[in-house]
Amino acid sequence: MPIVRVEMFPGRTHAQKQELARAITEAVANIAHTTPEATIVIFQDIAREDWAQAGKLASDE
Amino acid sequence: MPIVRVEMFPGRTHAQKQELARAITEAVANIAHTTPEATIVIFQDIAREDWAQAGKLASDE
Amino acid sequence: MPIVRVEMFPGRTHAQKQELARAITEAVANIAHTTPEATIVIFQDIAREDWAQAGKLASDE
Amino acid sequence: MPIVRVEMFPGRTHAQKQELARAITEAVANIAHTTPEATIVIFQDIAREDWAQAGKLASDE
Amino acid sequence: MPIVRVEMFPGRTHAQKQELARAITEAVANIAHTTPEATIVIFQDIAREDWAQAGKLASDE
Amino acid sequence: MPIVRVEMFPGRTHAQKQELARAITEAVANIAHTTPEATIVIFQDIAREDWAQAGKLASDE
Repeated sequence: MPIVRVEMFPGRTHAQKQELARAITEAVANIAHTTPEATIVIFQDIAREDWAQAGKLASDE
Repeated sequence: MPIVRVEMFPGRTHAQKQELARAITEAVANIAHTTPEATIVIFQDIAREDWAQAGKLASDE
Repeated sequence: MPIVRVEMFPGRTHAQKQELARAITEAVANIAHTTPEATIVIFQDIAREDWAQAGKLASDE
Repeated sequence: MPIVRVEMFPGRTHAQKQELARAITEAVANIAHTTPEATIVIFQDIAREDWAQAGKLASDE
Repeated sequence: MPIVRVEMFPGRTHAQKQELARAITEAVANIAHTTPEATIVIFQDIAREDWAQAGKLASDE
Repeated sequence: MPIVRVEMFPGRTHAQKQELARAITEAVANIAHTTPEATIVIFQDIAREDWAQAGKLASDE
């Protein structure tokens, strides 16, 4: 604890995930007064075909 | 907001996802008094091997 | 299966949840070719203090 | 209801998922006083590249 | 990792949650070949008014 | 999109949530090359009684 879950469109590089994990963990540990060791970050890709806003799939825009 | 997440077995076509996104967004916007623009719909496929009821995987039935 | 999860700000009435459950279930069963009995809808309230867009809590707007 | 969601690294065999579904369903039905038929178990694989602890991706360790 | 999430109707006692956490953790650690220390179990109550099957809220049945 | 979900023990102040929303949104927008406006952050409290590690509820430690 804490567990942070990041849902994004696919396409982020390994380096971007590394940087995101580091930056989010640092922010959470500092601001919420917990430790980096206790902080888990999970990335989940959502394909553009699986994400809609205003009733319209992102892949159709 | 609102965020609607639909977990289903794989196999829906692009057209079915389009129609689902449109119908769910319309229902949510009308009934919950929000706007289509504020409504997000996310689809997540769950493989039959990854879904169990009564302790039995759906892929084994 | 399917499982539909609806995250919204608090404040919808019991009648709105009834109507939403009915409308979403009907849309999913018809469009995804499943049965109403197999369709689960879960509502989860998210307080305005617990939801941010553009880095700003909804309760601060 | 209940719905149990298990997030793990990839690599469990079909037999392990069968056994997990059976054991978790039995535990939940017995202890929470519900029925196996009402108990759903969903498995979701999280790649090592998509999981970080202490700000470090599991795939980098 | 693994993270197990259990969604149930409210009303389980502290003792039931203790027993569930212990039994699920043991099953996951044994069957998925991981350690109890690496296994997290999270309980989330879903009110009967917030759960529908076949388009009908559980609180209305 | 992206949607970031932060599960923590209760007890963070409104100011901490403001700061977390701002810092996480900035990190995600910068690193994942998206906009703050497209970034949603959701906080979800998990009571210590509802969180277990190594088969033991956090409220029992």
